[in-house]
Amino acid sequence: VTGAAVDATLPLVFVNGERVPTDGSHLSVRDRGFTLADGLFETMRARRNVVFREARHLARLSDGLRVMQIPEPRHLRRWVEQAVAGAGRMDVSIRLTITRGAGAAGLTPPADVKPTVVVTVSPMPHFPAETYTRGLSAIIASGRRNAGSMTAGLKTLSYTDAVLAWLEAQRAGADEALFLDEHGHCSEATASNLFIVVEGGLVTPPVTCAALPGITRATILELAKLAGIRAEEREFSADVMASAQEAFLTSSLRGIAPLRSVDNRNIGRGAPGEVTTRLRSAYAALVDRECGGS
Amino acid sequence: VTGAAVDATLPLVFVNGERVPTDGSHLSVRDRGFTLADGLFETMRARRNVVFREARHLARLSDGLRVMQIPEPRHLRRWVEQAVAGAGRMDVSIRLTITRGAGAAGLTPPADVKPTVVVTVSPMPHFPAETYTRGLSAIIASGRRNAGSMTAGLKTLSYTDAVLAWLEAQRAGADEALFLDEHGHCSEATASNLFIVVEGGLVTPPVTCAALPGITRATILELAKLAGIRAEEREFSADVMASAQEAFLTSSLRGIAPLRSVDNRNIGRGAPGEVTTRLRSAYAALVDRECGGS
Repeated sequence: VTGAAVDATLPLVFVNGERVPTDGSHLSVRDRGFTLADGLFETMRARRNVVFREARHLARLSDGLRVMQIPEPRHLRRWVEQAVAGAGRMDVSIRLTITRGAGAAGLTPPADVKPTVVVTVSPMPHFPAETYTRGLSAIIASGRRNAGSMTAGLKTLSYTDAVLAWLEAQRAGADEALFLDEHGHCSEATASNLFIVVEGGLVTPPVTCAALPGITRATILELAKLAGIRAEEREFSADVMASAQEAFLTSSLRGIAPLRSVDNRNIGRGAPGEVTTRLRSAYAALVDRECGGS
Repeated sequence: VTGAAVDATLPLVFVNGERVPTDGSHLSVRDRGFTLADGLFETMRARRNVVFREARHLARLSDGLRVMQIPEPRHLRRWVEQAVAGAGRMDVSIRLTITRGAGAAGLTPPADVKPTVVVTVSPMPHFPAETYTRGLSAIIASGRRNAGSMTAGLKTLSYTDAVLAWLEAQRAGADEALFLDEHGHCSEATASNLFIVVEGGLVTPPVTCAALPGITRATILELAKLAGIRAEEREFSADVMASAQEAFLTSSLRGIAPLRSVDNRNIGRGAPGEVTTRLRSAYAALVDRECGGS
């Protein structure tokens, strides 16, 4: 691929390595991804055909497949890269979904599991400039995350709770919802990890607080150490968050998004803070370095 | 429909009221039921074209759609009955799935939600005779249900935890897995409600223990009262269950399935008990009455 123009047909959809028309029907209603959320996914970004931290995403997915006893399809990496190559060299987001495949009704998996692999390549979503310049407002969701669930730490297709929390935030006029875990510790946002700045150091909830082991989260912890910023995984309450100097959310597509308020109370000065801004620059530079410039 | 023969093409599949080929592709990979488990479902049984307790299933679904802010599609009842009629007059199971429809990547629902409605009609599944004569063995799942979740009490598409618990039971050589809630109370099985018999009376976990408000569960509570059996919703621990006289599981398709052991310890004498057997007869008679005989 040499051109920089994006194929006008984005999003591109690939099922089991074959390109299929974007509009139309791709899946059986008997696919267990649809009937039981019996699958996992990864969301990645790519620039100039380079998928940022691809190996880490695929390693996390591989770990999850093992826990779920879904045989890992061959060619995953090749299928992702082929899909990305088809989209030209611009910034794209990639969703890689793997399900246990089609099956009869009920929980019993088929004797011969044939996983379904879907790769979708879309333009990088547009986040309003305010997301970064002003920061996001959040509520604390009425429902709690469950660190004791069978699927804690896995990026499964079960996002129903996140959708309902997002709707709750929307009804409250907020941008995001934060979850506490069943013990009242801060956990994560609907689809992002949470960081706070306390006494100049970074703190993020450990995975034992039902936080997903995010790839961006891990990257930020590394960048903080390189930048000489103290960083640790530690439990904290909503009260500790409310009195933090800064807070931000991390995810593969939105990157680092400052959090300006929670339940209508400002975090710090109610604007992106110094540590957040430093880390945003360091993160942008890292993506440039690993993906060869913007 | 006058014949008693089942259409050889079962399962029948209907998408938004239109019959579609059983094999093949029916859904977009962008359907939020697939990407986010953003939907609800009901499992029902029908005999001689009569859907058992159809109104209650549709009422529960309607309540769930309201909580999830998914507009209720018109014609649901008609679409279910049309699907059942297409299958002749024998015993069938019906799965009715409703999702928020297709959408762009991310949690944000589309401005104009067009729900996807899938009805699948299958032969009633065959449960081994032992399920009822000998009873089921169960383990207590390592993961817990979450009564505090955003979706507690809703029959959403998020069954990933149930699948993993089922696999855990299978690895242990057991038939079923029982969940405790986050406080250690007994909750339910992977896709059934739980009842125990203590001092001759029935006890089932309240929905505040993350038990789904099952239609069969409600029916059993009514039948018990009619039969002069004390019945109540009350929290109980795994220890109380272990010392119960009897225990059984209820669901729309399997009906009442006796539980003979939990974690390799017999419940009562390790065989279906008297109360369980009485209720099984009463339940079978009720289905006969409401659906016009077997």
